Amino acid sequence: MAYKLFVLPGDGIGPEVMAEVEKIASFFTQEGSAAFEIEKGLVGGSAYDAHGVAISDADMARADAADAVLLAAVGGPKWDAVPYEVRPEAGLLRLRKDLKLFANLRPAVCYPALADASSLKRELVDGLDLMIVRELTGGVYFGEPKQIIDLGNGQQRAIDTQVYETYEIERIGRIAFELARKRRKKVTSSEKRNVMRTGVLWHQIINRLHDQEFPDVTLEHQLADALGMQLVRAPKQFDVIVTDNLFGDMLSDVAAMLTGSLGMLPSASLGEVDSQTGKRKALYEPVHGSAPDIAGKGIANPIAMIASFGMALRYSFDLGALADRIDNAIAATLAKGLRTADIKGSSTEPTVSTTQMGDAILKEL
Amino acid sequence: MAYKLFVLPGDGIGPEVMAEVEKIASFFTQEGSAAFEIEKGLVGGSAYDAHGVAISDADMARADAADAVLLAAVGGPKWDAVPYEVRPEAGLLRLRKDLKLFANLRPAVCYPALADASSLKRELVDGLDLMIVRELTGGVYFGEPKQIIDLGNGQQRAIDTQVYETYEIERIGRIAFELARKRRKKVTSSEKRNVMRTGVLWHQIINRLHDQEFPDVTLEHQLADALGMQLVRAPKQFDVIVTDNLFGDMLSDVAAMLTGSLGMLPSASLGEVDSQTGKRKALYEPVHGSAPDIAGKGIANPIAMIASFGMALRYSFDLGALADRIDNAIAATLAKGLRTADIKGSSTEPTVSTTQMGDAILKEL
Ligand SMILES: CC(C)[C@H](C(=O)O)[C@@H](O)C(=O)O
Ligand SMILES: CC(C)[C@H](C(=O)O)[C@@H](O)C(=O)O
Repeated sequence: MAYKLFVLPGDGIGPEVMAEVEKIASFFTQEGSAAFEIEKGLVGGSAYDAHGVAISDADMARADAADAVLLAAVGGPKWDAVPYEVRPEAGLLRLRKDLKLFANLRPAVCYPALADASSLKRELVDGLDLMIVRELTGGVYFGEPKQIIDLGNGQQRAIDTQVYETYEIERIGRIAFELARKRRKKVTSSEKRNVMRTGVLWHQIINRLHDQEFPDVTLEHQLADALGMQLVRAPKQFDVIVTDNLFGDMLSDVAAMLTGSLGMLPSASLGEVDSQTGKRKALYEPVHGSAPDIAGKGIANPIAMIASFGMALRYSFDLGALADRIDNAIAATLAKGLRTADIKGSSTEPTVSTTQMGDAILKEL
Repeated sequence: MAYKLFVLPGDGIGPEVMAEVEKIASFFTQEGSAAFEIEKGLVGGSAYDAHGVAISDADMARADAADAVLLAAVGGPKWDAVPYEVRPEAGLLRLRKDLKLFANLRPAVCYPALADASSLKRELVDGLDLMIVRELTGGVYFGEPKQIIDLGNGQQRAIDTQVYETYEIERIGRIAFELARKRRKKVTSSEKRNVMRTGVLWHQIINRLHDQEFPDVTLEHQLADALGMQLVRAPKQFDVIVTDNLFGDMLSDVAAMLTGSLGMLPSASLGEVDSQTGKRKALYEPVHGSAPDIAGKGIANPIAMIASFGMALRYSFDLGALADRIDNAIAATLAKGLRTADIKGSSTEPTVSTTQMGDAILKEL
């Protein structure tokens, strides 16, 4: 009856921020509000160092058996020269692909207390709350051929292939429209149909889905380059943005940075609902990366990782009340002026460490 | 002995902004400072309306024979439903491909007078001056296969292919390093080598080129998603950015928007220097698009188009002094407080029209 969490701290600041989540999960278990059984594994560079692969088959099996996977971050310069197939990112990509986590939800929310940490003018981001729905198991990330060919004479040819099929666009579109229904009922779909055939198909399928199943939601289209501009110019025009794997990668990073709250933003990667069990596989991770430059210094912001655990409570375990407690504890801690270095802004309070921030949130709980 | 300009006003606000350039070119010809012979053609939707194609073979031949091509912008909702092969963008893409314009130079400069028009905080963009060097004839824009296949059962599969060969990366890298030598001697190369094979080859070739030919220039690498973030966070860290066709499309739009000066930014697309004639083919166009929403209203900002003509004088005709006169005239006009609607910011001066702005610049000349 305990929820099985498979925890992958990964590389860089990963272990530091994950430790704070483990504290909170144990607290809930002790408190009796929900029971969590935590298993731990290795992914990324740390898995490579231990096993020579970016994630072992045994850990993949554990991820598959878990009720939810929590992952912190992978990668770092230490593994720059390892073979392509076993680079740190390959572990994350295998998790996404093998667990069929096709829907990546990346909220970009500007915490009012942090609006000044944004590089944008305060009025443009204060109150910002948009959701990027990124397709995660298709596109140029996984299409074949994907190879480097030797042409002789010192010339090489590298190839990547972007492939999308109707059903892949339909199911990610459906996620976006359903989310929009619970929010401000607007979806902006983005591709480069003026250049790419996958963009043409994307545009056509999203239009049809809208007309047939979601006529009550407002749909608009923006080319990916134009959307990048609009995110910088006037991000509050957006509610839900739906886009492909590669555009989603770039646009969600830009959106996250706009908020000034990068160290605060969680994400969820969801699979299809199993018609037998009614469950869906899911992985939760912060939007930020492994930040090797500050790893080991105890100064990383654990909030995105803690909020990712909060998303797991909400989306995987239907523990909305517990998730609310986490969100409120984060808000209360920020309201008291506690800031890690990344969200310092113009605050004059002393900067707190990773554990101080985690402990403060725990105390609020 | 006259310079042959082939002028393609295109769609939307294109004809309006191009008209201001024609005034300036005639003025220089009358003044005797340089002689320009202007031929005009059609591209984009306007070519489709006239000939059923996005650019006619006759106009392609004229572009090929010209000393420089000036293009304003293509596209608009009017042509949303035309067949893919003859959509407005196909004309621009054919020009780039057939004239072999592999190097797209997109400066992102923040005019101090306009720093307040940026959505970023003033101190982050004031004095910004970076150059994006975008590969323009390769990558996912032109790779084959590029098609939509019918799979039956209402399913379709769309495919785009990103291809890069060693020589393509070398020649665009060389342009970037050479430009950096004349600037602040720093190149940031960007790809997604953690996901894409083309990124792996890109990274390797740029590194080798640096070590062998440009060790005096500082080279750094940033993944494309991280670079998008950094552009928003701290754009002044960059000097020259070199990247592929698709990433360049997105990143240059974000960079342009940061400056608050989108309506001010020119670009140059250059081919290889012909070893026989010593000349290179070139096309000059604003970074902004055809802005169909404001077309025909006489309110578009002509400065990006005028500055593109300035780039033509500098790069194609070696008329640096004349180009300087244009740049100075633009600066003087701005200093007097003249603003089109897009760059209004908090200025209290009355807004000027397209022709008023063009005339004011002409008067300064
Ligand atoms: C680490 C990397 C493979 C990954 C991606 O490109 O998807 C990351 O940037 C992300 O956005 O989750
Ligand atoms: C109009 C379009 C085909 C073009 C591109 O994608 O290259 C434009 O966005 C640009 O950046 O010049």
